[in-house]
Formats: sequence, structure tokens, C-alpha cells
Amino acid sequence: SQSFDFADYSHRRWNPLTDSWVMCSPHRSKRPWHGEQGGDSLGQKPAYDPTCYLCPSNSRAGGKEMNPSYTSTFVFPNDFPAVQETQPVYSWSIPATSTDNLQSVANTENMQSIAHSLLKAEIVRGQCRVVCFSPRHDLTMAEMDIDEILAVVKTWTREYIELSAKEYINYIQIFENKGSMMGCSNPHPHGQMWALGDIPQEPSRELSSMKKYYEEHSRCLLCDYVALETRDGARIVCENDSFVCLVPFWAVWPFETLVVSKHHLGSLVDLNPVQQKDLADVMRRVACRYDNVFESSFPYSMGIHGAPCDGQPHANDCHLHLHFYPPLLRSATIKKFLVGFEMMAEPQRDLTPEQAAERLRGCSEIHYKMTNT
Amino acid sequence: SQSFDFADYSHRRWNPLTDSWVMCSPHRSKRPWHGEQGGDSLGQKPAYDPTCYLCPSNSRAGGKEMNPSYTSTFVFPNDFPAVQETQPVYSWSIPATSTDNLQSVANTENMQSIAHSLLKAEIVRGQCRVVCFSPRHDLTMAEMDIDEILAVVKTWTREYIELSAKEYINYIQIFENKGSMMGCSNPHPHGQMWALGDIPQEPSRELSSMKKYYEEHSRCLLCDYVALETRDGARIVCENDSFVCLVPFWAVWPFETLVVSKHHLGSLVDLNPVQQKDLADVMRRVACRYDNVFESSFPYSMGIHGAPCDGQPHANDCHLHLHFYPPLLRSATIKKFLVGFEMMAEPQRDLTPEQAAERLRGCSEIHYKMTNT
Ligand SMILES: O=P(O)(O)O[C@H]1O[C@H](CO)[C@@H](O)[C@H](O)[C@H]1O
Ligand SMILES: O=P(O)(O)O[C@H]1O[C@H](CO)[C@@H](O)[C@H](O)[C@H]1O
Repeated sequence: SQSFDFADYSHRRWNPLTDSWVMCSPHRSKRPWHGEQGGDSLGQKPAYDPTCYLCPSNSRAGGKEMNPSYTSTFVFPNDFPAVQETQPVYSWSIPATSTDNLQSVANTENMQSIAHSLLKAEIVRGQCRVVCFSPRHDLTMAEMDIDEILAVVKTWTREYIELSAKEYINYIQIFENKGSMMGCSNPHPHGQMWALGDIPQEPSRELSSMKKYYEEHSRCLLCDYVALETRDGARIVCENDSFVCLVPFWAVWPFETLVVSKHHLGSLVDLNPVQQKDLADVMRRVACRYDNVFESSFPYSMGIHGAPCDGQPHANDCHLHLHFYPPLLRSATIKKFLVGFEMMAEPQRDLTPEQAAERLRGCSEIHYKMTNT
Repeated sequence: SQSFDFADYSHRRWNPLTDSWVMCSPHRSKRPWHGEQGGDSLGQKPAYDPTCYLCPSNSRAGGKEMNPSYTSTFVFPNDFPAVQETQPVYSWSIPATSTDNLQSVANTENMQSIAHSLLKAEIVRGQCRVVCFSPRHDLTMAEMDIDEILAVVKTWTREYIELSAKEYINYIQIFENKGSMMGCSNPHPHGQMWALGDIPQEPSRELSSMKKYYEEHSRCLLCDYVALETRDGARIVCENDSFVCLVPFWAVWPFETLVVSKHHLGSLVDLNPVQQKDLADVMRRVACRYDNVFESSFPYSMGIHGAPCDGQPHANDCHLHLHFYPPLLRSATIKKFLVGFEMMAEPQRDLTPEQAAERLRGCSEIHYKMTNT
């Protein structure tokens, strides 16, 4: 098999100490950095920014492409993708160079088999797309109206269908990084879709937990959990006919929430038009409550977890849900750091999930900018 | 059993979706915040800061205590500890209130058993100590000399022995958050020791991986890994007789390193005086190389993983090592964000571990401030 240069292609590597994976995209170091250095949450942004590479009719990062004068959502392939479609498919176990070195050492009879147990890596293929939520440079989901967010939901669904039709794509991760505090490299509201050949670690852990739960109880873990939370009430933030938003019992981030479909649906493509609109509705309400907590643009990472598109049956181990992970703790600028103890030992939080839910329940669903003026 | 109010006591909760734990310390919301808002890495700090609550002879956070005029390391109990010794020991399964609510609902025959499967929590007891590295407000490990760092190693060891002698303490996590970017709430160089009743998640994952590896190979995972890396060389940063510093094959953070004992030792208490000095030496060299990467004070979280002090034999599943997790990627101010995709799907890195090791190997072990003047 051909020798594989780690420095040239996206791949993932296994951590034998924690049995987890990390993805490596070396070519990506070249991407430009437009992220602000904090403090972007209080300033007023213009509706159109002539220097923004995501605004309509402007030229894009890299300078080669030009955005159309789009009027609703707008999707394009990431100019600096973490994963690529055209990457060669090598099968890799240990790099040839290390094997050579190892073989030349006398007292290492089984050094190669050690390398095979400890150094595992595999190629990652995929595609990355950027989804601009609307032409407006200044409108996040917290201030968009339901129909504008519905356009985003429909765009995600359309792209999801297109990407999942590709033979080699088995999982599609939709996410948004909002705010420079969450590493967002451009303040124009947008999200991303990374379509991948393999199911990544986090959804794959959720899949096995849900599978195990189903095997033990013959019921869906999240269906049971929603039933429990709906009856208890202490951690519910808001809901509509199709979705409930709650602070999970096991939340890590101070104001973390989980948005779960009330019906047992697998992924975005299973939503009917009413449910699509209900998803837009709940997203607007959650985002708006967040902005109202500190009367500022509330940063977060949001992601959608649903069934893989790997051609396997997932009725029993998947249930559509969204995670919101916002870093703020005390104010518009003071975040919770998941550092020393959290990295080395165990995530740690200060306020309880019940206290966070109560605080979020107390926030209005009318944006503070509307009421303050 | 007595009813337990989550809002009053430290506890940990289980995440059934990912089979992981989170620690919750609600009383800790009251702690003061002295962390800077970024940009602290370039300014010159004074050797003594009259407003610092960690400097000798100053009054501490909370105002009740006064620091002695210490001249080497100085240890005191955290004024705002995440875990407490005196906490009552309740056994908890589901909060009484939710049980009541649930029982009153007609069509929920097994709602209680669902709650028992999904909502798990347990009490956390422990003690938190702060270790000031030296009286100097301005000297991090990168600029301290070996003997000064040796005093820190000896202090950790002494405290470790004292804490581990307590019946209910089963694990001691030693760590340092360096720099405001890593949530350090006071720039005076210091670390922390959290002594706990339970083995937290991360060391406990490492323990099971190492146990499994030993069962399969009758050898220690980290002994094998060190042998492999020493022969290959591509990921080695520096070493001495007792320790090797390398960028692990599976590193997540751009310049993450792992410092491993070359001998099969369990924890800090197993180091002889020469090895203690070698640990001080390797820590100084790693910290100094880090500062030299961008000629700035390089932020990181550092943590020591060793054998639990739970009275069990750990010769086969533990091997003393230190993790350094530094966030910087491109410059003294631009860090790698582990956000959207990383949180929702899988950690992602840009430069390869081999490239990072090469860069760190290229850095001097003489601090840039010494050579620039
Ligand atoms: O204890 P400190 O320095 O006040 O706080 C810092 O370290 C702790 C332990 O890693 C974290 O929980 C905090 O979020 C962080 O700001
Ligand atoms: O793709 P962007 O917005 O340039 O980059 C952002 O999101 C990515 C995906 O979560 C992360 O890997 C980057 O660290 C972050 O800065």
C-alpha cells in the first residue's frame, strides 16, 4: 500500500489512553483569520458590510470567488475546508518511516506489533459547506423572524438530502459557531455543514448509548427522557407542539440547552412542514432568550444530531435533537472556562441546571433591542 | 434517606447520552473574579503586586485571611473550593419532588424506573488547595530556576502525602491554569490540588485503558508508548534521564505535550530525589520552549496523572505522566477554538503533531527575555 504523508491529508487518529479520536486537517493552517479579539458582542453591526466576505455581492475569502446578490439563505463550499472529497483513500497503520526505524533496532522484537496496537489512524473524506443565514450582516437567529429561520431549516434539509445521496457520505454535522468568543471567524450570521465518510466520535457515542438503552428497555432513550422532563418541569425552558427546549440534567456549560423533537424522528429530513416551522420557532425563542440573559449577543455553538446517512436502520438508536453550548457565566464578557480540572479530571459547573433553566424561563421571548427602544 | 438539595452541595451527574460525568459546585458561583480579559501575556508584571491576594503579606480573597511573608512555595486551602470536606453524605437517586410529581401522573406506570435509569447523581466530597509557586508575582515556571521548581515538586509531594492519608480521599488532581486565556483568575503563578473521594472521569478512563492494555499485552501501555516514541523520534521534544516530553500521536491542542516518566512509576510519591530534580528540569525546559514559540507568556493548563490513593494496587494500570494543553495556534493572541464541530462531532486540529514537535524542538531552552536583552 502507498505511503501516506500525514502532513498532506485529513485523517483521524486514535487516543489509546482515553479511547477517543481527533481529526487532523494539516492543509487548513493556511486559512485566513477574520475573527475578532473579543468584545464584538456589544457593538452595533451594519446591515451590509462592504469588507465582509459573506455579504451579498462581495468577494470571498481567497479572493477568487464572488458572492451572488442573494436575498434569502446562501450556501457555498467552504474555501478552506477541513475535509476534502478528492482525497486519496489509503489504508494506513503505521508510517513507513517509523516502521523502518523500528525494524533497525535490535532489541525490539515486537515493536511493530506495539505500534499496531497504539498508533491508529485513518483517512477522513468529506465536504464542508457554509450556510449564510440571510443577506443581513447584523441579524442573528435571535432577531430573525420565524419565516427567515424557516428558510434556513429548509436549506439545511435540501443540502442534507443532496449530500447524503453521495455514496461515501455517512454522516452530516450541521453546526453554528456564534460570536468571536466561540471562534467564529466572521460575524456575518452563518453556520456550517461538514459531510463525512465516517460517523464522528460524539454522535457515535450517542448512538451506542441509545442502542444500549433500547436493548435494555425496548424504548428510545430520548423519548423516555422527554417524557420525564415534561412531567417534572424543573429543567424545561420552553416548548411548542413539536419541540421542547430544556437544560439537560447533565448540562456542562452554564446555560447549555437541549432541543428535542417530541415525536420520535430520526433527522431533519423526517420533519413535515409544520414541524419545520416549529423547529424555526423554537430556535428563534431559545436564541432570543439567550440574548436577553445579559442583554447582549449571546455566543454559543449549536449543533444538530440526527440519524447517520449510512444506509443502516436507525429507528431505535437515533432521535433528532439540537445542542446549544453557550460559554457565558456571569456577564456578557465573563465566560466559564473549562480548563485545568475540567480538562485533566472532569467537567465542572457552578450554577445547577435547575437554576439555569429557571433563569432562562424568566427571560422574555421578545428581543431586548425591541423592548429597550 | 434524607432529601438532598442540589443547589446546596457539590455533586456529580451522569450523562446517559455520552456515558460521561459532570461535577456541579453550586456554592462556587460566589467566588470573586480577578481574571483579566485577555492581553495579559505581553505586559511586564511587577515582582510584587500590593493588590494581589496571592503575594506574600497581602490579604486574601474574601479578606478574612492574611498571607505570611513566605519566601519559597506557599500552600493554603482554596477560599472558594469547588468541593468540601464537611459535606453530608447522602445517597441520591431521583429528587423527592420529581418522584412526587411523577407518581401523581396516571399513565406513567414505569416513570420512576425510567428516572432511575436516566437521572444519576452522586455526592462529591473533597478538599481544594492552592499552591503558590514562589513569592515572585512575575515568575512563571518558564523563568524560574530548577531549584525553585524543585521546591514546587517537593511541596506537591508533601501535600499529596498528607491529603492521601485521609481515609475518604481516593484521588488527587494537581493542575495549573496559566494565563487569563486559560481562565486563570490571578496572574500570580500558582497551581491547585483538588483531592476527591471519587476518581474523576479522565483519570478513570485512562485507568481502564491501561488496565485493558495490560490484560491483553502483559505490559504497561505508557512504557510501550515511550519505547516506541524514543525509537521513532519524530514527536520527541526533549528529555533527561528520568522524563521524556513529546507531542502525543493523538494530540488535540496545537502544541499539546505529554511528559512521561521513563521508569514505570505510579505517582509523585514514587520519585527519588534525582527524579524529583529531573521532573523540575523537564518542566522548566518545556515551559521555556513554550514561551519561546511566540516570544510571549504561553498559556496552558498542565495536570499530573498518577495512581489513585484508594488503597488498591495500581502497578499495572498507572504510569506517572503530565499533560500540557496550550490553546495558542498562530500567534500570542490567536488560539485554536475547539468549538462547533469539535464539541458536536470530534476534536479537530490543523498542524500535525509531528509539525508541532518539530517547531518545539526548534525552540531554545534559554528564555527569550534572557537572550533579547
Ligand atoms: O480556581 P480558579 O483559578 O478560580 O478557576 C479556574 O480553574 C478552575 C479549575 O480548573 C475552573 O473550574 C474555573 O472555571 C477557572 O476559571
Ligand atoms: O470554520 P471557521 O469558522 O473558520 O472556524 C471555526 O469553526 C471550526 C469548526 O468548529 C473550528 O475548527 C475552528 O477552530 C473555529 O475557529
